Amino acid sequence: MDIKAYLRERKLLIDSFMDGYYSTPYPPKVLRDSMVYSLSAGGKRIRPILCLASYEACGGRAEDAVPQASAIELIHTYSLIHDDLPAMDNDDLRRGKPTNHKVFGEAMAILAGDGLLTDAFCLLADRRYRRPVISDESIALCVNELAYAAGSQGMVGGQAQDLLAENSDPDPITLTFIHEHKTAALISASVRMGAILAGTRGEDLERLAVYGENIGLAFQVIDDILDVEGETEVLGKPKGSDERLNKLTYPRVFGMEESRRKAKQLIESSMAAVSSLDGRADPLREIARYMYERKS
Amino acid sequence: MDIKAYLRERKLLIDSFMDGYYSTPYPPKVLRDSMVYSLSAGGKRIRPILCLASYEACGGRAEDAVPQASAIELIHTYSLIHDDLPAMDNDDLRRGKPTNHKVFGEAMAILAGDGLLTDAFCLLADRRYRRPVISDESIALCVNELAYAAGSQGMVGGQAQDLLAENSDPDPITLTFIHEHKTAALISASVRMGAILAGTRGEDLERLAVYGENIGLAFQVIDDILDVEGETEVLGKPKGSDERLNKLTYPRVFGMEESRRKAKQLIESSMAAVSSLDGRADPLREIARYMYERKS
Repeated sequence: MDIKAYLRERKLLIDSFMDGYYSTPYPPKVLRDSMVYSLSAGGKRIRPILCLASYEACGGRAEDAVPQASAIELIHTYSLIHDDLPAMDNDDLRRGKPTNHKVFGEAMAILAGDGLLTDAFCLLADRRYRRPVISDESIALCVNELAYAAGSQGMVGGQAQDLLAENSDPDPITLTFIHEHKTAALISASVRMGAILAGTRGEDLERLAVYGENIGLAFQVIDDILDVEGETEVLGKPKGSDERLNKLTYPRVFGMEESRRKAKQLIESSMAAVSSLDGRADPLREIARYMYERKS
Repeated sequence: MDIKAYLRERKLLIDSFMDGYYSTPYPPKVLRDSMVYSLSAGGKRIRPILCLASYEACGGRAEDAVPQASAIELIHTYSLIHDDLPAMDNDDLRRGKPTNHKVFGEAMAILAGDGLLTDAFCLLADRRYRRPVISDESIALCVNELAYAAGSQGMVGGQAQDLLAENSDPDPITLTFIHEHKTAALISASVRMGAILAGTRGEDLERLAVYGENIGLAFQVIDDILDVEGETEVLGKPKGSDERLNKLTYPRVFGMEESRRKAKQLIESSMAAVSSLDGRADPLREIARYMYERKS
């Protein structure tokens, strides 16, 4: 299959939906402008695409789960806005553009993040955006999954630990905690949500969960590697920006060779987890392969 | 009925549940400490109590809706933490205690708010905390209600407008927008959620919604009046703190006499909205009366 075409088409579904979602103006204008600024700052939409691919692997039609998948991107975008704040990582650039608080000020950036995070759950549970094939039970389960992965025992906990670990000694346990919580939890939840929305429970859900955990961690390990290897122009952020903050990264703790080996092993584990699924899981397999080969 | 005893007993249900909810430690410890610090800073729990009173007015037993009602308090608490931040209202005291960022630093305060906001939805949709009398449909509806009231078209929008309106000329339309969004929306949603959790739809839900809108706005008008009239010792914050920031308030825009008249009228409208409901709605009526007479 042509994975690049697949990613492009699914990204278009997500982008079109999100454009429409915030297209009707409501006051105050600057708050919506600030949210839309970061939402449309060129994200690859990998989390909602994984949700759609998982939904398709379970027999659903991608079009039917677009609003619920888009909710994940709202959460991801909020996390970037808050991570970039002066009190956090204090970043001026994100994907080659000024960060939200550089454009809209700190107060509005905090509120834009709060708004996106809250709106994500509003959208996820909104009946007007739900196809009849998706049940109330699936929505309730997805709200719980997404909030657990993003909350204090998930992404927020990972970001807190990340801040606490700055300038600390390289420590494999802390590093793994940060990566699993800050990045892998939301990616893994994206995959699980796709399956849950399709009504999948039990063993197949567990297989997809293992795929999600492995690909989620792989994503962050590869990101760490690219931060050392990559070029600023491709990444849209200064190369080595993690090093500047003395962040714990895989290359810093394990070295480059071991990090590459780890990434390869995680990708292989993710592929193995879904090996018993039929051809409808091909996009998931191809995304794993593509992620391993990605340059940005 | 003894409304003080009612409020005390319902507050105890909420407080006991929330103590238990965050009792199991998980890393990083400081994030949980920061969330628990603000959660247990002496709130009156008026929002979750209104949710329970509404649930009871619709025939439910208060005990059955405590976890879902508590989710509202998590959202309220997050909003206080973020509102107090240096980039926002820059407050040092809240209910007579140092604000979250004064104790835990700005980064951790932002994350504590993010954590509480996200955890609220995790809790609301958590099956392990749900009695069988509450349906998946009710949970999905409540997630949508709560997120809409708290999100960019509700509370977050109100806070954004509040910041934008600082030092601006007294303007009744802007003032009403801020109060309806920043305060009334969440209080109104609390009342609606109680009814929805009890399976109430249609006309009775609409009656309770009107009660909620009126009491929500009354709450903020009375708060504005108390900020001018009240004593620092009772309020736990410096008297006149709104004036210091040049915030738009009812007394500033309409004068004290008109503000008192407005509060009385809103309370009367809230009572009228539930006049056709039976004795099980007495707590809602008594809360309205009590709110009008409150001193803090």
